[in-house]
Order: sequence, then structure tokens, then C-alpha cells
Amino acid sequence: MMEVRTQLELAQQKIVSDEMKVVCEREGISEKLLLKNLACGRAVILKHRLHQCVPVGVGKGLKTKVNSNIGTSKQNVDIESELEKLQVSIKYGADTVMDLSTGGDIRAIRKLMVEQSSIPIGSVPIYDVTAVESDVSKISENDFIEAIRAHVEDGMSFITVHSGLLREFIPLTRKRLLGVVSRGGSFLTKWMSYHQKENPLYTYFDDILKIAKKYDVVLSLGDGLRPGSLKDATDEAQIAELRVLGELVKRSRASGVQVIVEGPGHVPIHQIRENMLLQKQLCDHAPFYVLGPLVTDAALGYDHIACAIGGAMASYYGADFLCYVTPMEHLGLPNIKDVIEGVVATKIAAHAGDVGKDRRHQALDDEMSTHRKNLAWDKMIALAPNVDKIQNLECFKNSTDPCSMCGDLCAIKVYRESGEISQCQQ
Amino acid sequence: MMEVRTQLELAQQKIVSDEMKVVCEREGISEKLLLKNLACGRAVILKHRLHQCVPVGVGKGLKTKVNSNIGTSKQNVDIESELEKLQVSIKYGADTVMDLSTGGDIRAIRKLMVEQSSIPIGSVPIYDVTAVESDVSKISENDFIEAIRAHVEDGMSFITVHSGLLREFIPLTRKRLLGVVSRGGSFLTKWMSYHQKENPLYTYFDDILKIAKKYDVVLSLGDGLRPGSLKDATDEAQIAELRVLGELVKRSRASGVQVIVEGPGHVPIHQIRENMLLQKQLCDHAPFYVLGPLVTDAALGYDHIACAIGGAMASYYGADFLCYVTPMEHLGLPNIKDVIEGVVATKIAAHAGDVGKDRRHQALDDEMSTHRKNLAWDKMIALAPNVDKIQNLECFKNSTDPCSMCGDLCAIKVYRESGEISQCQQ
Repeated sequence: MMEVRTQLELAQQKIVSDEMKVVCEREGISEKLLLKNLACGRAVILKHRLHQCVPVGVGKGLKTKVNSNIGTSKQNVDIESELEKLQVSIKYGADTVMDLSTGGDIRAIRKLMVEQSSIPIGSVPIYDVTAVESDVSKISENDFIEAIRAHVEDGMSFITVHSGLLREFIPLTRKRLLGVVSRGGSFLTKWMSYHQKENPLYTYFDDILKIAKKYDVVLSLGDGLRPGSLKDATDEAQIAELRVLGELVKRSRASGVQVIVEGPGHVPIHQIRENMLLQKQLCDHAPFYVLGPLVTDAALGYDHIACAIGGAMASYYGADFLCYVTPMEHLGLPNIKDVIEGVVATKIAAHAGDVGKDRRHQALDDEMSTHRKNLAWDKMIALAPNVDKIQNLECFKNSTDPCSMCGDLCAIKVYRESGEISQCQQ
Repeated sequence: MMEVRTQLELAQQKIVSDEMKVVCEREGISEKLLLKNLACGRAVILKHRLHQCVPVGVGKGLKTKVNSNIGTSKQNVDIESELEKLQVSIKYGADTVMDLSTGGDIRAIRKLMVEQSSIPIGSVPIYDVTAVESDVSKISENDFIEAIRAHVEDGMSFITVHSGLLREFIPLTRKRLLGVVSRGGSFLTKWMSYHQKENPLYTYFDDILKIAKKYDVVLSLGDGLRPGSLKDATDEAQIAELRVLGELVKRSRASGVQVIVEGPGHVPIHQIRENMLLQKQLCDHAPFYVLGPLVTDAALGYDHIACAIGGAMASYYGADFLCYVTPMEHLGLPNIKDVIEGVVATKIAAHAGDVGKDRRHQALDDEMSTHRKNLAWDKMIALAPNVDKIQNLECFKNSTDPCSMCGDLCAIKVYRESGEISQCQQ
């Protein structure tokens, strides 16, 4: 069998792949810049070799990306609804979707997702293990590895592996208000405690690398010990795991496997910058994929807003990839509307951060503002994050001058009437 | 007539007023600290002498406050609806409400608001002038001053006066993408251009001070030249006006009148900190009252989210008072639901900023996280920003273990089952 070269290896050999060309085209950047960032691992391309999806670049010099989490739960197995969530995620601008299904025929759902998706799909293989068998005594080390193999073969462009959660870190979680809040992390904790063995995702990391490499699947190093509350943020457990993730980044790159690192979670506003810098430092600038972060624990029902605040700041300070949070976070499975709200809020956050990182992203804002100046409603609406929402407003259905706020007291109109523009131009 | 002493003057004389006692009680701070910050003008208390409302402290050492803007427009004169917006603003935690009515019997509406409000009401008197007579040629300098007198007599606890927009700054607005976007600012620009005279709110500032002082009304120095787009942020026009506001802060304080300063508006994420520090520096640390700021111009229909991002960062970096933005910003008059969304989003932002400023505010988060750890749903819901929203969720209507996300794969449950807590405690 011919050796497959990953995007990382190709970049190191200065070979511009078709995937790289697409990324450069979509991001408006040079091949030289992308090659440089891919070659050193500061950027990756999400694209399973066999999935006919658009390749998505994540990392340095690239736009901040947004992921939408969907999937069935044991209580809610409605495959049609999840496939609809996939399509609305794409419609509203998610760059990737993670299928986190734990209910029904999980493998069949995953394959359907890949079949119907024009964007890369990611997953967390350990969920499969736990969904099939929740009794840790019956789960072998090999079960974890085989789950990863199945996900990779099914077309996932990236998979979360919680390989940095070492057994020795478990006592550190005792000091926490909320212990372990990652599903994968809590399951591994339970497994290690029962079997009195090291985390198999760490022990067999070389096998995982081989499996991922075959289809150029990007490893997303999961943070099983991410904090579950502001009080637990940036604590010893989190940082201990992050240090291991940093080592695994190096091992991945040395094997030619593309790798990104996952991060928190719950982080108070004054620790966001610190968290971003710390990850970049400990993980040799690997792309950083954060969940939120939520800047308050008290926004129940509005966690997408707490996430937008944290996500925008994270993006500005260096995060490369934001996992959305919906208004249903901490409450239950999101419905279609919640998915839309989550994607839109996180897209706004990503863009706000991008403007701070690189002024060229402000072109969108300048365009909107120009239409605003001209009171060009159709053009403003066309640039809105959710066109349908605005078109369905009563005042926008039958009017060419729809704003019901100011009427003839509109500042833009009054300023125009002041004639100051023409006076000044004399 | 006996000379009325304002909260500023009382504090300077080390007299603890009843209003100060209430503020200390509600904020959990010492009288000594409040006296100190009031005396130097770094904090103010919003409370019209004759309005039976709760006094609200704004500024250094105090929680970040949230204002909700409501009021009729010429197209929408539904007084009942505006009074309902007042009540929902209070219910969801707004600290103040500004009545920006421009349609119907404005004065009657304003009086009703005061009558029915348990929190301080603010307003922008110049809106009255423009609503009654939009032809600038027919408006005299005295009309502006008389409008202010009427608002002060009607019980406003704070009023916006755009006294810093000098005639000489008008040419600077020509360089902008969006000129003047403040309603008051654009009207004054038109008035000055027509009459070829200085801004009467500047010329007669001493008269305004006398009028405000009578009822201890706080002057909110409006930023008529606030930027209307990221492109115009932190420009020459904005800073020129801010310098004048800084002078007016000193004149207000010297007259014993409490004063705060209004700020942007539209600010890209990388300029928020700078804007906060600049205001504190140029305005001798007067409390800063910001509108948003919006970190992107492209969130049409979701401006409350762009505002939450900017507001949280602004609060963290020094803003004291956030004016909410609803999802209808740039689109039209908000309805009841929009008002709720605006208040909730801005409250979340204010709290997130407060946690960053002062760790004691994290008590709320820690409480929520403790309930989360105990899966105590009723207690979590009771702390949520919008209890009704959660109670109306299908899964929360008839269940004691309502979360439909993880079921028996819940990380909190699995972590508990791991037994690690008890093992570690041995």
C-alpha cells in the first residue's frame, strides 16, 4: 500500500495540495503563508481523505472557525431532526459539525452525517464505547482503540481523543468544585479507577497516530479535565493535562499527524488571555479549539451569550476554533432553533475576534456600515447573520423604509439634511 | 429657599445620606468607601429628589449597572406597551430605564413612567425639542434649555445633554464613513449649521448645572459624536468631544452637580480597553456609561450579542454603566420580548465584567455551580436570568431529572460513580 502523506507532511515537503489551494482561495491568503503555518503545525486542514467535503483550514493566519455539536441522545433518537440540524448548521455558517450521537444506531447516524455533509465532520469516539457499554468493568483497552478505528474509517475529519488525562491527575480533581465535567474525561476517570491502569488513549497513543494518519484525520487532543466552573478555571488539574497535551502535540507532528488542542470551558474574563497564551506556549502554538469559554456559570438558558463573550475574547487572544454553545447548554438537547442561535452567536464572536486579530476582516463591517449610511435595507439584510429572521419581522414585510425606531428623527437622515458634508467639501 | 445639597456635596462633607445607606446595603460595601468615591466624583447616585425610587449607585467600587431604553416613536405610540416594557425591564434586572419617547404626548408618558417606576428614570431632553419641531430654523437656544427644565421637573434621575459637541468639531465628521449617528448629535449639528452658532448646551452649561442641581439630577454628558461604525471608532471627532466632556466633568463637580460620561457605540475588540482607559484619563475617572459597545457592525438582528461581547469587555476594563442593545437595534422599535433579550444579555455582560473586576462577584457563579454539582435543578433555575424561559421548556415541565442531553452518560453522575472522591479522601 502506498504511504499516504498528510497535509502536514506535504507542507513540510513544500508541496501545495489541492486542499491547500482551496483553503488559500477561501481565506484570501498566499500559498506560501499557508505552507509555512502548516509545515510547523500552527495550522491544520480538516479533511478526511475519503469525505467529499470542503477542506477547512484551522490555525494561524486563518479565520477563526466555528463548530456546531449535534447528535442524538439516549432520550432523543430522531435522526431526521439531527440531519436537519446538520443542514441548518451549514446554512448559518458553521465550518464543521461534530456528531456526538449516543442514542440509536450511532454508526449508521455517523455515516449518514458524512454522506449528507458538505463540511468536515468530527466526533468523540469514546462516546460510542460508553453508549454501548456503560459498565467500565466490561470495557477493555482495545475497545477504546477499536472505537477510534471505526470513527476514522467512517469518514471523520477530526476526532477528539482525551489522551492527556493521566491517572496521576485524578486526585487533583478532588480539590475542585465540579470534579470532571467532560463526558469522555469522567468515563476515563471511572475506567482508570476501576482497572487501576493508565489511560489507554495515552498508553496506545502511537497506535492512534497510525490509525489517524491513514486518512489524514486530525487529532483533536481533548481536555478531559477542563474546568466545569469559574472556580475550577486554570487550576492544577487543567494545566497538568495541558502539559501532557503539549507533549502529545510533538509526538503527533513527529509522526506526520495533524493535531489541534482542545480547551475550556468555564473561564472568568480576566483569565481568558492568560489561558490562550498558556496553551500556545505549552503546546508549541498548535491550533487551539475552545468550548466557549463561558465567562459566567450563571447564564443558564443564555449560555450562548456567555459563550459569545468568551469566544470573541478567546479568538482575539489566539484561539483558532470555537465550539458553539447553544441556549440549551446545561439544560438538554438543543432543537433546530437552538442550533441556529448557537451557530449565529458563535459566528459573531469569531468574527469580532478576527477583526481584532487582523483588520482585513473588517471589510464585512465596512460594507454593512456603507449600506447603513445609504439606508440600503435590502443590502443590509443580505449581509445579516440570519436573513430569515429579519425578513419575517412585520415592519420589513411591506416597506421600503422599514425602520420603526426613529422615523424622520433618524440621525442618518438628519445629518444628511444638515448639509455639513457639502459645506465642508467646498 | 433652602439650598439643596447633592449626594456629591454631602459626601464631600462626609455626611452619610439615606440614599448612601441604601447603596451600601445593596452593594455590600462600606460607607467609608462609598463616601470616598462619591466625594471625588468617581461614583454617583442616581435618584431624583422627588422620585420615590431606589437610589442606584454607579461608578468605582460598585456593580456595573444596566440601563434599558424604551419609549414611543412617531410610528408606534402604544403607551401601555411602553409601560409594560418598563415593568419587564425591572423584572429582568435593569437598574435604570431611559424613556426615549418621541411619539404621542411625550410629557404625559414621561410622568407615567416616573409614577410607575421603582427604579430611576433617565431621558434625553433634546428629543422633545426635535419631536415637537423638526425645523431647526424655528428652534431657539432657549427651547433646548426649557426642555431640560421640564425633564428635570418631571422627575428624571439623570438626563443626557450633548454639551461637548462643539461647532468646530463638525468638519471632523466629514471624514467619517457614517458622520453623526447620535440623534441628539445630528440634530445639534443641523441646528449649529443653520444658525451658525455654538451648541447652546455648551454655551448655557452653567444654566443647565443650576437646573440639574435643584433636584440632584445627574448629568449624563452625551457623546453626540460617538462612532457609528468600527471604521469611525476612536477617531478625531470622538476624542475631540471627549476632551470637552472632561472639562465639563470638572465644571459640574465644581458646582456640586453629579456627572457621568457617555461613550460608544461601535468599537472593535482591540480598541475597547484603550477606549475605557482614555475616558478615565480625560474625564478624571468620572463614571463611564457606554452604549454597547458593539464589536461588529455586521450582527444585524443579533446586536444584543455584539453588545454583550463589547459590554462585558468594557465593564471589565472600567465601564461602570451599560446601556443595553436589543436584537432590534438598527432595525426598529423593540417589542416586549426584545426588551427582555436586551436586558438579559446586558446583565450577563455586566456580571461577567464584574467578576473580572472583583472576585467577590463570583459568589453567584459558585452558587450556581454548587447546585449544578448537586443536580439541584430547582435551585439552578431559581438563579437563572430568565426563570420563565426555562420553566416553559418541555423537558422541565414534568421531570425531576430533566436534562435531556446526557442521561446516564452525565459527566457529573459518572464522576460521582467513579468513587474517586472517596478514594482520594482516604
